[in-house]
Amino acid sequence: MWLQREITLRPRPRGFHLVTGEVAEALPELGDVRAGLLHLFIRHTSASLTLNENASPDVREDFERFFDEAVPEDAPYWTHTAEGPDDMPAHIKASLTGSSLVIPIARGSLALGTWQGIYLCEHRDSGGARRVVFTGFGESAD
Amino acid sequence: MWLQREITLRPRPRGFHLVTGEVAEALPELGDVRAGLLHLFIRHTSASLTLNENASPDVREDFERFFDEAVPEDAPYWTHTAEGPDDMPAHIKASLTGSSLVIPIARGSLALGTWQGIYLCEHRDSGGARRVVFTGFGESAD
Amino acid sequence: MWLQREITLRPRPRGFHLVTGEVAEALPELGDVRAGLLHLFIRHTSASLTLNENASPDVREDFERFFDEAVPEDAPYWTHTAEGPDDMPAHIKASLTGSSLVIPIARGSLALGTWQGIYLCEHRDSGGARRVVFTGFGESAD
Repeated sequence: MWLQREITLRPRPRGFHLVTGEVAEALPELGDVRAGLLHLFIRHTSASLTLNENASPDVREDFERFFDEAVPEDAPYWTHTAEGPDDMPAHIKASLTGSSLVIPIARGSLALGTWQGIYLCEHRDSGGARRVVFTGFGESAD
Repeated sequence: MWLQREITLRPRPRGFHLVTGEVAEALPELGDVRAGLLHLFIRHTSASLTLNENASPDVREDFERFFDEAVPEDAPYWTHTAEGPDDMPAHIKASLTGSSLVIPIARGSLALGTWQGIYLCEHRDSGGARRVVFTGFGESAD
Repeated sequence: MWLQREITLRPRPRGFHLVTGEVAEALPELGDVRAGLLHLFIRHTSASLTLNENASPDVREDFERFFDEAVPEDAPYWTHTAEGPDDMPAHIKASLTGSSLVIPIARGSLALGTWQGIYLCEHRDSGGARRVVFTGFGESAD
């Protein structure tokens, strides 16, 4: 069983955003998969995807604080500055967190841990809508 | 051919731990796969998985030193501090290294390079047992 | 449909190198895949793979500058120093960026975004040739 679909996530401000619910709603066919995998792939180089804590909004705010400190906009070594001070740091942050996720599907649901949620990591000030390709595959339930 | 199984890794102290042998032992069916992939997925947000050097214990100790320096417990910007000083850094370290691995299976074995080993990255002081879902799939040998 | 092949990337100097074209040329069979995934796996612990901006060479140079600053060769905490000052930082950089990529295949091509390219991240001064295992699988076009 193969499923492949591109969805567009609406524009969001810079920061780390929980999108687990949107992903599950976009893929109702997962309910038919007994055992498989879901691949999420963001088709951009200044936004990324990661899994992390799904309960406390302050965790996601601390992600933003950490990455802004670790990848500073005003570092003296940047040369690719023509697209704005948030551009080059956004590229680095995207590679540190990664452009894709692979999540097991078990008995019709994503087999996330209790505290795991899917983060859209928006690293640009105004990144616009973001396109994500979902590829699901596995054994069907019957 | 599909295989999906959850195993529990025993509690380990904070640090980077080589678990390649445990993983291979837990999955004897891999021997029947001619060509395929193995996905490992940790169902937690304060521990992670990575591949790195499998020979020198001092490499794994230097990993711990680097990440403790790069993601400091006493950074002034943390606001999510209710679960202890090691909690928020653990979330960041988990996203920097990643919650899953995908490894090729070739002729019945994991196609790791000579020096590659699987690290369980335990970022909490007392993280407890950790659950990992394995999903293997591929062409069987006959 | 399964495809598995190891290729060797020629030695490159330390830095971030765009290899999208080489990858596509090595895998002509992708043209027959209607929907699927391609997994790229580097069998080394001091080089890695990531996706990022494919147009401006200065982005790749800024990657090198950032990672050299973030993972300094002269940090006082390194103990694994016998293989040279570039060795232990190379291991850390490899785990920060990752040893594998998963890219969707759609209608016979890699479904990369307009600006996404595949980077070989060479973290050693003289890393030599690098072996990459490709595993592709999906539904064939007819």
